[in-house]
Amino acid sequence: MTSHQEQRFLCETEEEIMFYDTDCGGVVHNLAYLRMVEKCRTRLAASLGFELREMGETGLFPVVVRTEADYRKPARLADVLVVRGWLAEWGKARFWCEFEVYRGEELLLTARQALALVQMPEGKVQRLKPLENEGPV
Amino acid sequence: MTSHQEQRFLCETEEEIMFYDTDCGGVVHNLAYLRMVEKCRTRLAASLGFELREMGETGLFPVVVRTEADYRKPARLADVLVVRGWLAEWGKARFWCEFEVYRGEELLLTARQALALVQMPEGKVQRLKPLENEGPV
Amino acid sequence: MTSHQEQRFLCETEEEIMFYDTDCGGVVHNLAYLRMVEKCRTRLAASLGFELREMGETGLFPVVVRTEADYRKPARLADVLVVRGWLAEWGKARFWCEFEVYRGEELLLTARQALALVQMPEGKVQRLKPLENEGPV
Amino acid sequence: MTSHQEQRFLCETEEEIMFYDTDCGGVVHNLAYLRMVEKCRTRLAASLGFELREMGETGLFPVVVRTEADYRKPARLADVLVVRGWLAEWGKARFWCEFEVYRGEELLLTARQALALVQMPEGKVQRLKPLENEGPV
Repeated sequence: MTSHQEQRFLCETEEEIMFYDTDCGGVVHNLAYLRMVEKCRTRLAASLGFELREMGETGLFPVVVRTEADYRKPARLADVLVVRGWLAEWGKARFWCEFEVYRGEELLLTARQALALVQMPEGKVQRLKPLENEGPV
Repeated sequence: MTSHQEQRFLCETEEEIMFYDTDCGGVVHNLAYLRMVEKCRTRLAASLGFELREMGETGLFPVVVRTEADYRKPARLADVLVVRGWLAEWGKARFWCEFEVYRGEELLLTARQALALVQMPEGKVQRLKPLENEGPV
Repeated sequence: MTSHQEQRFLCETEEEIMFYDTDCGGVVHNLAYLRMVEKCRTRLAASLGFELREMGETGLFPVVVRTEADYRKPARLADVLVVRGWLAEWGKARFWCEFEVYRGEELLLTARQALALVQMPEGKVQRLKPLENEGPV
Repeated sequence: MTSHQEQRFLCETEEEIMFYDTDCGGVVHNLAYLRMVEKCRTRLAASLGFELREMGETGLFPVVVRTEADYRKPARLADVLVVRGWLAEWGKARFWCEFEVYRGEELLLTARQALALVQMPEGKVQRLKPLENEGPV
């Protein structure tokens, strides 16, 4: 994980755990956390210039090419979680985002995702332009 | 509900209840049944001539315009359910499908959905052609 | 639908349409709206005294026994929707909630759900106590 | 990835891509593949002695502690995918499962998951017993 001082384009989203997030083990299902990460990443991508509305129109999407997630502690119904996401690396063909999910001070999940820029519907991978705005540090 | 003798284009799908179908109440979540109904309806629509692959290419989709669902008894982890779907009514602008979800002999859910034929991405509703094949009665 | 003057315990939630809400028809999938309605209903239930955290502990849940939904107009990626939910009827064994989903002034979906109070894991339906607080009108 | 000769307890599941698996980019959403992997893993776990029905009763669950997924090629509406899962490693505290998702001969996704055995609702991690049955090689 990137040290907190280097978290660029930091984005935070908040989630209240609903029934549909949980399973009969009594805790949040592993897929539900990734849906929450997805919302945070979409907001993060917007701060990098990938606006949802434009994507829908241009067909140029940041596409997840790798996901890593470590499940540390379970969340439960009614918990309020904060998802923190930031840009960790910006390369020529892909960029990496990192995420931490907290309940208060407790770290429940860490995750990393690599994304590539893809022109749909052809599915052609585009080169990334250099990042101009270095963003808030 | 249509009587069983009149169930045309009958389609059955089977589902084994997974963790992601359940919630922390210990039973299947109300949305999960509708995802199962959706799979049955897609197969039913194929038997009416709406093939998934063609839809993806022509952009002509049967779109749900109304859903009714009655939840009668809960299903649980590892249950094997059978979803029965059939055509109940074929009109000029919409058609109705009906569904029953069973665990063995037990009826757990009944549902009805009205669908219209829509040309995407414009979203224009198309007239339904008369059904030629009357299907198995 | 109940007239707006009679909307008791009115609750509003906001949703930004993410990729996972849409399907390859280019619009929001019919199940995704119901997940949004679910969040609004959970907040509405809290205002009626059914707190999520208590439910998790007592095992006494408001359970959906009937859903009706009318899909009027499609939502798209990046749309910001408002879900309005209110109590429409409070009976002895079940209560009805009604919902409207708006994009700005446009009404996209209306829905109604009947709920019963169920003691889990036995699944026994409980009688509803009279509502004392008449709520904001 | 483990070589194919060493794939123990091999399990295969089949999935037909439905609308709810896709998003408005025109391809299968990254979370949907993980739901498919989940079904394969549940069947795989059953072949390792973790039967779904018993889990629901004993509260002893194999819980995902790490997920890695590499998205190689996109799937589309109506594709029929095969998910292959097998046991890659059986340790003292966790075991690893590996997965490949194919459309015909084309490899679309590879994934690995580490699981620990957890007693719910306390959330206490249990030691794994040695695997007796070496399974089909």
